[in-house]
Amino acid sequence: MKPYILLSNDDGYQAAGLRYLIETLKPLGHLIVVAPDGPRSGYGCKITTQNPFTLHPVSHDEGIDVYACSGSPVDCVKLAFNILLPRLGIRPSLVVSGINHGDNSSVNSFYSGTMGVVTEGTLQGVASIGFSLCDMSANADFSACGPYIVRIVEKVLAEGLPPFTCLNVNFPRTDGIYGCSMDCNPVAASSGKSDVAAAASAGYKGIRVCRMARSAWINEVAECHRPGSGSPYYWLTGEVKELEPEATDTDRWALYHGYVAVTPQTLDTTAYALLKDWKME
Amino acid sequence: MKPYILLSNDDGYQAAGLRYLIETLKPLGHLIVVAPDGPRSGYGCKITTQNPFTLHPVSHDEGIDVYACSGSPVDCVKLAFNILLPRLGIRPSLVVSGINHGDNSSVNSFYSGTMGVVTEGTLQGVASIGFSLCDMSANADFSACGPYIVRIVEKVLAEGLPPFTCLNVNFPRTDGIYGCSMDCNPVAASSGKSDVAAAASAGYKGIRVCRMARSAWINEVAECHRPGSGSPYYWLTGEVKELEPEATDTDRWALYHGYVAVTPQTLDTTAYALLKDWKME
Repeated sequence: MKPYILLSNDDGYQAAGLRYLIETLKPLGHLIVVAPDGPRSGYGCKITTQNPFTLHPVSHDEGIDVYACSGSPVDCVKLAFNILLPRLGIRPSLVVSGINHGDNSSVNSFYSGTMGVVTEGTLQGVASIGFSLCDMSANADFSACGPYIVRIVEKVLAEGLPPFTCLNVNFPRTDGIYGCSMDCNPVAASSGKSDVAAAASAGYKGIRVCRMARSAWINEVAECHRPGSGSPYYWLTGEVKELEPEATDTDRWALYHGYVAVTPQTLDTTAYALLKDWKME
Repeated sequence: MKPYILLSNDDGYQAAGLRYLIETLKPLGHLIVVAPDGPRSGYGCKITTQNPFTLHPVSHDEGIDVYACSGSPVDCVKLAFNILLPRLGIRPSLVVSGINHGDNSSVNSFYSGTMGVVTEGTLQGVASIGFSLCDMSANADFSACGPYIVRIVEKVLAEGLPPFTCLNVNFPRTDGIYGCSMDCNPVAASSGKSDVAAAASAGYKGIRVCRMARSAWINEVAECHRPGSGSPYYWLTGEVKELEPEATDTDRWALYHGYVAVTPQTLDTTAYALLKDWKME
């Protein structure tokens, strides 16, 4: 019997990345989609506490039910596990989020609604995977991702994941341009991006299971002024600064070198080293 | 010279917990407050990507500037570090968030805007601490927290924290009632809460430096129906289920037994055990 797989994302149920994910996973399981009714990028693990939210069925094609929720990505997962799936008598084997339009590697993971879905799926006790492509454009090219998604999902369906643990999978662009800014790609900067572009033209180089790189956002806030009154308002923006560009075991290294980056993440954020050392009383 | 300390929260600049924090920390440093202009509970690490946001000075009492921001708790910190503090020529020594009206121990930490501030402060490279009291009411009694906050802040100002590491500090209520639901307090359940109440009447028992407990929320979504049309809508709600109630080294154990729970948290969420074991290709 085919497993049930819950899908969600943070770009909304109409996003191209989610449509691609549905097509890719259709042969592997019974899919149920509960996704936001519009863009929720940067929502992290936000939950809606101040107001109620709604859920509407939006399509039923080839046995795949798609629901749109007015809440956050995490709200979608909570609604699915607490209301929708119990009524259908379903306990999913897997939660899959994405494919996000944009990079969720390194510290981006904290702000990511895509990874909010994955965190919540993990908290619900189900193996959960987030997929993201380092291209924010609405018509991003997901076509090289499919075979890797199938392999990773089949492995997790077969083997599971330990409790409180999930996967954050990021794909570089296939044109050799990494993420939102060429300037932060040390490979492209040093090589005129020929190496990466050459590798990319033949698809991804393979998979790297890797740790989260330490990086920082800089120049994050732009000040604008309202015409007339001149009162200031602010937009988030910014560039990535790599804090350990030499490390070869990170998600960023993998992405800069044309690999699919698979980062196993834990929800136990206890800093065990400091826990041992930090004495009080 | 006194250090600069940036304060924020997720309950808004008018919240009693923040006012108490200001009074408590005033003797320890120059305070700058950049907080949301209203409640942002459950915002986690949300950033505002779809629209701009504003910043307004709201008060200047005894040399303490308070600014209100229309964005998320994380937006407040980004605005402070990218615009406000550089203009003032200030690099703070510490970021302090809270005191939150409500429990941010265990898995609550993921959804917490209070801890969103702390995560962002840590990403900005500054030692950051979140304080929360396990009482959601607007007129929660913070009066026992002060001496502990001073001790913890003085220690962090003196010793710093390792990079990518922060503190999540939770206070139990002083009336022996833990968190939002008595039912989930195994101590109170077994003892008729007399032990905890007795200990609490004399203030907190002390500090426990502890790991994050594993717990789950259950019955998280309530369905309501709109009068007239009958169309359903949903509110988040729920109860806590402890997944390791016997463990004595957790934040939850500390809170259930009348201690202040100090949990050192890391931002490196890589699951290193799985990273070693999870082979692909």
